[in-house]
Amino acid sequence: MAITVVGSVAFDSIETPAGRRERCLGGAATYFSLAASFFTDVRVIAVVGEDFGAQEEAVFDARKIDTRGIERAAGKSFFWEGSYLDNLNEAKTHATDLNVFAAFEPKIPGLYRDSKFLFLANIDPVLQRRVRDEMPDVKLVAGDTMNYWIKDHRAALLEVLKGLDILLINDTEVRMLAGDDNLVKAAQAVLALGPKALVVKHGEYGATLFHGADPKDHGTKCFRAPALPMEEVVDPTGAGDSFAGGFFGYLASQPEQTPAAFRRAMFYGGVMGSFACERFGTERLQKLTRKEIDERFILFRELTHLD
Amino acid sequence: MAITVVGSVAFDSIETPAGRRERCLGGAATYFSLAASFFTDVRVIAVVGEDFGAQEEAVFDARKIDTRGIERAAGKSFFWEGSYLDNLNEAKTHATDLNVFAAFEPKIPGLYRDSKFLFLANIDPVLQRRVRDEMPDVKLVAGDTMNYWIKDHRAALLEVLKGLDILLINDTEVRMLAGDDNLVKAAQAVLALGPKALVVKHGEYGATLFHGADPKDHGTKCFRAPALPMEEVVDPTGAGDSFAGGFFGYLASQPEQTPAAFRRAMFYGGVMGSFACERFGTERLQKLTRKEIDERFILFRELTHLD
Repeated sequence: MAITVVGSVAFDSIETPAGRRERCLGGAATYFSLAASFFTDVRVIAVVGEDFGAQEEAVFDARKIDTRGIERAAGKSFFWEGSYLDNLNEAKTHATDLNVFAAFEPKIPGLYRDSKFLFLANIDPVLQRRVRDEMPDVKLVAGDTMNYWIKDHRAALLEVLKGLDILLINDTEVRMLAGDDNLVKAAQAVLALGPKALVVKHGEYGATLFHGADPKDHGTKCFRAPALPMEEVVDPTGAGDSFAGGFFGYLASQPEQTPAAFRRAMFYGGVMGSFACERFGTERLQKLTRKEIDERFILFRELTHLD
Repeated sequence: MAITVVGSVAFDSIETPAGRRERCLGGAATYFSLAASFFTDVRVIAVVGEDFGAQEEAVFDARKIDTRGIERAAGKSFFWEGSYLDNLNEAKTHATDLNVFAAFEPKIPGLYRDSKFLFLANIDPVLQRRVRDEMPDVKLVAGDTMNYWIKDHRAALLEVLKGLDILLINDTEVRMLAGDDNLVKAAQAVLALGPKALVVKHGEYGATLFHGADPKDHGTKCFRAPALPMEEVVDPTGAGDSFAGGFFGYLASQPEQTPAAFRRAMFYGGVMGSFACERFGTERLQKLTRKEIDERFILFRELTHLD
């Protein structure tokens, strides 16, 4: 079933030990929708500037992603410049030019309103909440956030968490949000804020799914998915959003979101995150095939399963 | 089949956020042999001082560990004092008194010489090599080391690696040993130094087994075992040695060391490491039952398996 995603569509200039790219297509909603598009229909809500042209549009079209919710505004698109020269796990930001994104007011096309799945990518929690409220009939809502909103926009973020089924954040973020260094206790605290499930991304160590865990269960309400040990991470930009796209895209493709479907979704998340890192920007996701995805899913199984 | 282990038997004073213990029984060979003793017969080679008494001896006896290779020397036993107040993943060392360990000359009892499995715990690589050379008929040799030997005793350590079947070290150590920050490349480089298999321990994120991996295989020659998400880590001291004990103890208990046995051994390693952290020092390992181990093994499977 169709997913509507709201988030950024941007241009990124990226430098990693593998090289440098200027103004490649990026943004959380871009990575998310490309990754999710291998599993289900995806509809994007975003804003771009006049620099977003036919070439960028074609990237979405090639994956049959619905871009009617991408508003064209006067000015330039969101631009981010960052490098990973010292640490592939953490970007050093050199520039963040919000441009048209500064005045972003998400508008939900009428045609999107029958979407049963909603993904709130990392944007201002006030906007996340507004979109969520305007789509009361969705079946499952997942979302992302980041340290900036956790630290300085906590009240608004807490309102978003109340309306989320699934929150996907990284280790540092869950500890910051909960104010607890212990991952399990932090996860319990975050689940108490509203989300029914929490996916904590550990970068090269994979990800953990927590859902309504009772401390006495000693982990039975957890599930750990691996990341692929990679000989070369060309560009980690968008890996988390690609994880989210694979995870939520797979869930949305299933008739029921059973615990078993959640576990497989964690694997598909890892699979899509691993592909995203293999080339700069969205290059790898653009060229990907469903066959490659399925083969890598099998690899993830071999990497973790006893028999 | 029986394992002979050479390493430290010590007293540790430990402070963690959960409290403080003075002079509890510790040392790599102690944790290793307690953990391995649940799977197979274990024989220890070590040296202790006059402070090692009936109470400590009883801990080994209760697990039917052969201590005839533990030499009693005049003086005090190896003593370590450390804390984990800021970071449960890394001990801050306050004191290391080698005492009788400074002049340790491992002597292999004749009765140990039919051991088919040998574990070289973290000691001077010159001594590791000597013990390994004196037991030419063992079937499988595994070993551990640490940053100190990697940095300042590299030549001696490289000699040890040539004679190892399995090296078990942590993330930081494999990167330091290989001089490469990428885990997969670092693992390849270490495997080229001699070991047929490498187990890299990632602390709370589990561990990865690399064996003769071809870069083109994209991880098919890897296996990732989880660690148990724990609500409270009482004391991480000895978790790595307990992992090694569970891993190698299980391998030694099997008629053949097949790839499937290696994968299960990775799980048993994680299981024993998780128990070790639940109480101070060796308290948890002393009270453990095989039933608890098997139950936790099932939990590890549920934590990672799709079906």
